[in-house]
Amino acid sequence: MSLPQKTVFIISDGTGITAETFSHSVLSQFTEHYSFKQIREPFVTTVDKIKEIIARIDEIAETDSPPIIFSTMVDQELVDYMRHSKGIFLDIFGACVNTLELSLQVRSNPTVGRSHLDASSEAYHKRIEAINFTLAHDDGQFVHGLQEADVILVGVSRSGKTPTSLYLAMQYALKVANFPLIPEDFERGQLPKTIQPFRHKLFGLSIQPERLSEIRGERRPNSKYASLEQCRYEVAEAEHLMRMQNITWLSSTTKSIEEISTTVLQILKLETHKY
Amino acid sequence: MSLPQKTVFIISDGTGITAETFSHSVLSQFTEHYSFKQIREPFVTTVDKIKEIIARIDEIAETDSPPIIFSTMVDQELVDYMRHSKGIFLDIFGACVNTLELSLQVRSNPTVGRSHLDASSEAYHKRIEAINFTLAHDDGQFVHGLQEADVILVGVSRSGKTPTSLYLAMQYALKVANFPLIPEDFERGQLPKTIQPFRHKLFGLSIQPERLSEIRGERRPNSKYASLEQCRYEVAEAEHLMRMQNITWLSSTTKSIEEISTTVLQILKLETHKY
Repeated sequence: MSLPQKTVFIISDGTGITAETFSHSVLSQFTEHYSFKQIREPFVTTVDKIKEIIARIDEIAETDSPPIIFSTMVDQELVDYMRHSKGIFLDIFGACVNTLELSLQVRSNPTVGRSHLDASSEAYHKRIEAINFTLAHDDGQFVHGLQEADVILVGVSRSGKTPTSLYLAMQYALKVANFPLIPEDFERGQLPKTIQPFRHKLFGLSIQPERLSEIRGERRPNSKYASLEQCRYEVAEAEHLMRMQNITWLSSTTKSIEEISTTVLQILKLETHKY
Repeated sequence: MSLPQKTVFIISDGTGITAETFSHSVLSQFTEHYSFKQIREPFVTTVDKIKEIIARIDEIAETDSPPIIFSTMVDQELVDYMRHSKGIFLDIFGACVNTLELSLQVRSNPTVGRSHLDASSEAYHKRIEAINFTLAHDDGQFVHGLQEADVILVGVSRSGKTPTSLYLAMQYALKVANFPLIPEDFERGQLPKTIQPFRHKLFGLSIQPERLSEIRGERRPNSKYASLEQCRYEVAEAEHLMRMQNITWLSSTTKSIEEISTTVLQILKLETHKY
């Protein structure tokens, strides 16, 4: 049985990224009853543009069924147009802003596009620097400047260090280096020398050997590197080393990049956002 | 005059990333009246944990002022505890879910942690592949597999190609390659040969010469590469080349990574999310 389809409009005066993420969370609670088709309308700032979008919404409402509208628009004139469309209008910040105005006894000041960092701001500059640092310090390739790192991820090859590093840099402007743990380290029973002085910044990623073997096999099929035996050996040794060295680690096997990153922040108690 | 400070709790049964982004947008509307101190509490799934958090909230409410609580919790028992704390409770999905239940005449099915992709899912796998592809195809370093690319960004060195590529890969699971446009290309008056067959996937980034000179100067101070004269020459030539070749481009000078990425999606009409 196929589910009825609803059209969903994401309308924003900015990128619409916040509205999009939010809409996914809300709509995932209705996927037993409907499938959803998303139309994203970013950078909507004029009456002409909103009228054009509303015409499409009204047409879908008449010929099919009323679309759902997730809006983060703040211009009251444009919001009023949308309220009178034939769609199901959801002002995603509205209820929370109203509650806060009442509780705090102050008026809000809606300003277009405050959700994202301004490209000329100090914070934005820090973010680009963090991304560049993280790229330069991927996979132990560059050992200078490690004293500047906020985090150093360690783990066997293909345990998820690179995507996690990039996410932390992109989302939180953290400078993240990552280092592979390799058989030479296990034989010595020591961390790579270059990262020994930075033990307080280390966080480990581990992974189930079976999953690791799958991932490595995609890259180098039938190699020793991808064999289950080798993966078992490396994972056991890496976990042993991390335990000996008192490094907190988690298993990335069933975790998303977001979940791993959140845990890293939580455990290393990293300061991230400032208002 | 310093503003009064409010403590803000971000409480989630998942990572809290959606709640955090949302809270920034809402609180930015109140920064004329308050400064905010954020405490993020991810992975809250037990009564013991929520009681411990509420004890801290209540203490702050009594000794200072009631904290603001942004919650994406779905477990009704835990939500009920929070509603009876002394904080200002904001259930960020609540109002929208209620409106949709009424409009669609169905019950929602709240399920913990649906906001992010499951690490074992097909979609998640695609995302990791996209990140790996994008890293391998950064800065024109690897020319094989370009037929698999969803987007190929072009522009002069340091015009913002790399952060934009990584963001599109991370957020939208798009395979993004990027290629520098260099003086040799301008002399030939041609795009690099390897990307000529993929003109429909190309998107250009440009930048103000003054800003480019600043950015390059941080990396290589007092070099010809960073000189305003060289930057002016390269930007003018790159824009001329893109115009001749009919490549859409935008200026990254005052735009955030999110704004650039949104525009790329919009103009190339790329399909991104599926429900």
